[in-house]
Amino acid sequence: MTIAILGGTGPQGQGLALRFAMAGIEVALGSRDAARSVEIARDLNAKLAGRPRCARIDGFENDRAVVAAEQFVMLAVPYAGHDATLRAIAPLLAGKTLVDLVVPLTPGDPKSVSMPPEGSATEAAQALLGERTRVVGALHNVSAHTLNHLDQSINCDVLVCGNDVDAAEAVAELVGRIGVAAYYAGPASSARCVEAITPLLIRLNISRKVPFSHAGIRIWAPGAPA
Amino acid sequence: MTIAILGGTGPQGQGLALRFAMAGIEVALGSRDAARSVEIARDLNAKLAGRPRCARIDGFENDRAVVAAEQFVMLAVPYAGHDATLRAIAPLLAGKTLVDLVVPLTPGDPKSVSMPPEGSATEAAQALLGERTRVVGALHNVSAHTLNHLDQSINCDVLVCGNDVDAAEAVAELVGRIGVAAYYAGPASSARCVEAITPLLIRLNISRKVPFSHAGIRIWAPGAPA
Repeated sequence: MTIAILGGTGPQGQGLALRFAMAGIEVALGSRDAARSVEIARDLNAKLAGRPRCARIDGFENDRAVVAAEQFVMLAVPYAGHDATLRAIAPLLAGKTLVDLVVPLTPGDPKSVSMPPEGSATEAAQALLGERTRVVGALHNVSAHTLNHLDQSINCDVLVCGNDVDAAEAVAELVGRIGVAAYYAGPASSARCVEAITPLLIRLNISRKVPFSHAGIRIWAPGAPA
Repeated sequence: MTIAILGGTGPQGQGLALRFAMAGIEVALGSRDAARSVEIARDLNAKLAGRPRCARIDGFENDRAVVAAEQFVMLAVPYAGHDATLRAIAPLLAGKTLVDLVVPLTPGDPKSVSMPPEGSATEAAQALLGERTRVVGALHNVSAHTLNHLDQSINCDVLVCGNDVDAAEAVAELVGRIGVAAYYAGPASSARCVEAITPLLIRLNISRKVPFSHAGIRIWAPGAPA
């Protein structure tokens, strides 16, 4: 299997590429700049050298990365590029599943969100792409820092949302392969909550009152240890 | 210290009354029906009999409960009664801190929220009460079931939000006394996320795919056990 990660040259995209490659899933790393994604892919493969059973990471321009993916295309661009990136590749996404990781952080204040009129980035993506592409929001809350520190397990459960339950469950299964618990959190409108958890975590990370940074969230069962 | 809990005869209010009384904090349990709150308070005190250092729980009509509280008035009514309850007691709340626990669950579908035009219940409360009352959102995500099972520790961190940081920090300190970690999650607008976490947890609790019910959320530090 090959998945695409667009905006894959940023910290979150790079970390996810490493984690999926470690899980044996080929990654087509997309960027507006093919030379840059090729270079980053080479660096990432070098980081994985010596680890057993890793799949390859290859760099492409965004549209070529979409074509390389059979089913799952992850969008990990900054919010400022969310709509423009989708418009540029929309026809290529028909029949595939867009996994939207983007959080509409407020420009200049990453401790808050400024949601689009549709309610969330995931809903905006679904409205923009129409019915031919299934949009699933996922992986918004996982710290890029943690993803890139391969010796650490990922301290974040993943809340997955989308109007197509089958697509969302398939994404939850995919995401589970990098070693996280993933839960179906409801239709695309749930992304209004799920995306907004990220700035809450950023606020805690910035705060001196919390004794850790790079925090995640966990669904906490009764009786489980603190 | 005495705190008021309005809507205190419901499951969440009862559970919180027990937990605060166990922490040595007197509780004025408020209801529209004074006879009912007196009766429930008697039952709750009976449940605490034999436990050391518990404070008393007393039943009142809502307005009398507000008067009994020096500073903190918790609102734990169903969303349908949120605005009407606040309007009825608004003058009595001047100079006090309203701790709003209410989640605007969609009628007939507790797996989703239907936020008021202000954005969240906390924001609606602040708009309704004006500047004389400091409104802090807190304790939305804690399972009533867990609160009422006194042998269980509370499997939920508490996200506290409000426009007055000092008031929010004071509420976080108060909430911490029942044995939970409480974090400042930003201004009242953060309640759009914090309140919406509750229906996500309700969805997980209903789902057969999650191996537990009465789930909470936890802020998860890197390196902490799963």
